[in-house]
Amino acid sequence: MAAPDGQAPDKTPEQIAQDVTDTLLAEDAASRMLGIELLEVRPGYARLAMTVRADMLNGFKMMHGGLTFTLADSAFAFACNSHNKMTVAQSCDVDFTNAAKEGDVLTAECREAFLRGRSGVYDVSVTNQDGVVIALFRGKSRTLGQPIVPSLPQADV
Amino acid sequence: MAAPDGQAPDKTPEQIAQDVTDTLLAEDAASRMLGIELLEVRPGYARLAMTVRADMLNGFKMMHGGLTFTLADSAFAFACNSHNKMTVAQSCDVDFTNAAKEGDVLTAECREAFLRGRSGVYDVSVTNQDGVVIALFRGKSRTLGQPIVPSLPQADV
Amino acid sequence: MAAPDGQAPDKTPEQIAQDVTDTLLAEDAASRMLGIELLEVRPGYARLAMTVRADMLNGFKMMHGGLTFTLADSAFAFACNSHNKMTVAQSCDVDFTNAAKEGDVLTAECREAFLRGRSGVYDVSVTNQDGVVIALFRGKSRTLGQPIVPSLPQADV
Amino acid sequence: MAAPDGQAPDKTPEQIAQDVTDTLLAEDAASRMLGIELLEVRPGYARLAMTVRADMLNGFKMMHGGLTFTLADSAFAFACNSHNKMTVAQSCDVDFTNAAKEGDVLTAECREAFLRGRSGVYDVSVTNQDGVVIALFRGKSRTLGQPIVPSLPQADV
Repeated sequence: MAAPDGQAPDKTPEQIAQDVTDTLLAEDAASRMLGIELLEVRPGYARLAMTVRADMLNGFKMMHGGLTFTLADSAFAFACNSHNKMTVAQSCDVDFTNAAKEGDVLTAECREAFLRGRSGVYDVSVTNQDGVVIALFRGKSRTLGQPIVPSLPQADV
Repeated sequence: MAAPDGQAPDKTPEQIAQDVTDTLLAEDAASRMLGIELLEVRPGYARLAMTVRADMLNGFKMMHGGLTFTLADSAFAFACNSHNKMTVAQSCDVDFTNAAKEGDVLTAECREAFLRGRSGVYDVSVTNQDGVVIALFRGKSRTLGQPIVPSLPQADV
Repeated sequence: MAAPDGQAPDKTPEQIAQDVTDTLLAEDAASRMLGIELLEVRPGYARLAMTVRADMLNGFKMMHGGLTFTLADSAFAFACNSHNKMTVAQSCDVDFTNAAKEGDVLTAECREAFLRGRSGVYDVSVTNQDGVVIALFRGKSRTLGQPIVPSLPQADV
Repeated sequence: MAAPDGQAPDKTPEQIAQDVTDTLLAEDAASRMLGIELLEVRPGYARLAMTVRADMLNGFKMMHGGLTFTLADSAFAFACNSHNKMTVAQSCDVDFTNAAKEGDVLTAECREAFLRGRSGVYDVSVTNQDGVVIALFRGKSRTLGQPIVPSLPQADV
């Protein structure tokens, strides 16, 4: 952890992760449009919730897989940016294991599986209100490096 | 091609693909919410367009990758259901190759790479109005078998 | 757990997993050619080891990624067949996180991440003798159903 | 195309691709162990062949999927290094579409689907002697940059 001169040196990695995520969320119009809610964020970890609305259903009247993916992708974004280094998705894989339906409350939980230099691997599980696994997602990230909140230090990871 | 008794026996595979897609689209609230537009559909093929709106941007003010994925996933859904056999996504991979920004007009083009029995592989490219590749997507499908439009025959593939 | 008439009814799932794996390994010429060694197998779990030999190196004199994948794929095969139902790989994803070199002893550990009906998702990590992660692998399986060892019961999963 | 001082300035990209591949193949003990044969290489493209031997079979007496992957991965390696810039695999996805058996002659054909800066996406199809698709593979590459054959120029891609 390197604190820039004159900056608050005593923020914990947990506080930095929270501040960075609040900053990203304030700008994240897509997550807001979908009603995505932040439940928890820590370094390398994020947990979000989203309720399946009628306007999220596909032609079979089930949750559109793309929007389940979007929830997982948002969890991935918050987890991989939690160290205050701007990081983008390079590629993602998703397995759709069960269908979700209108009214379901989906939770996406993302954990850092690997991080070395600029490359990371993150695993997300999406479950419904009964604990049924809706999707398993794996995201691969690339760190660009600049801080998301310039006034905050960057985690040394 | 097996025509049910008393049904129109003379629809071409192209007409069936169009009718099935029209039926799916009429119910597809998610694609409608995102302004996804059908440009072309044929057996094993679909091409869609979507304009990047302000409410589709992520915390970096770029197109949310999940919504780019959703466009590709819709193209995949229409292509793999074009034979009038209900088919769902099992898993998908996506590579994000360039960022998209507000106002970009994205086109997703999906081709059937492989289909045998109940298993299929479909490739989608998403490009912007300048032909720049935004994402490469590969979807793996599983056919459940029942017709989407019961009054239409099913393609023998 | 359904025991066929006249069969040993008292094998535990752990014993079944071991017997099935021994049966598969006895036939598995490829794993033998590569010196793959079984360390542990349980229902939905397998752990294997392999030493990187000179004849496994690629044009950069590093371990060929395909053979790292093969080790992970063998762990996946033993884990997903451990319930005594013939199961095959449908698709796999692999991330190469660090290079392996001649003389490294690689361990592949596979865990069942999801299993419902005929579809499963398995996660494998490949590490070297220092605990460095060489690859992260995710395998997606399809169960065909027939027993691998007909005299043994099949696990109800 | 930048020719280093005093070096042969008139090699075509096709000749460079051939020279680079010959250099890599001469060191590639793993491809040699598996009997992998180069059929054709061009910038961004490679085609290889391999015969399924008895010592490549898995516990079901079918071709081990890991070795099918290895063939595809070698084709990917030669295609993505064909520009004379050292390039490594970051991640790969594979779909196993049909089983291969002893005596089958497999051909892997790799094409560059995308290349920008240091990131590339390559598609490989593996087919048998009857044209049946055995596997579809997608590899994602990262260019490290140094020349593979220092005396040759590097392609500007």
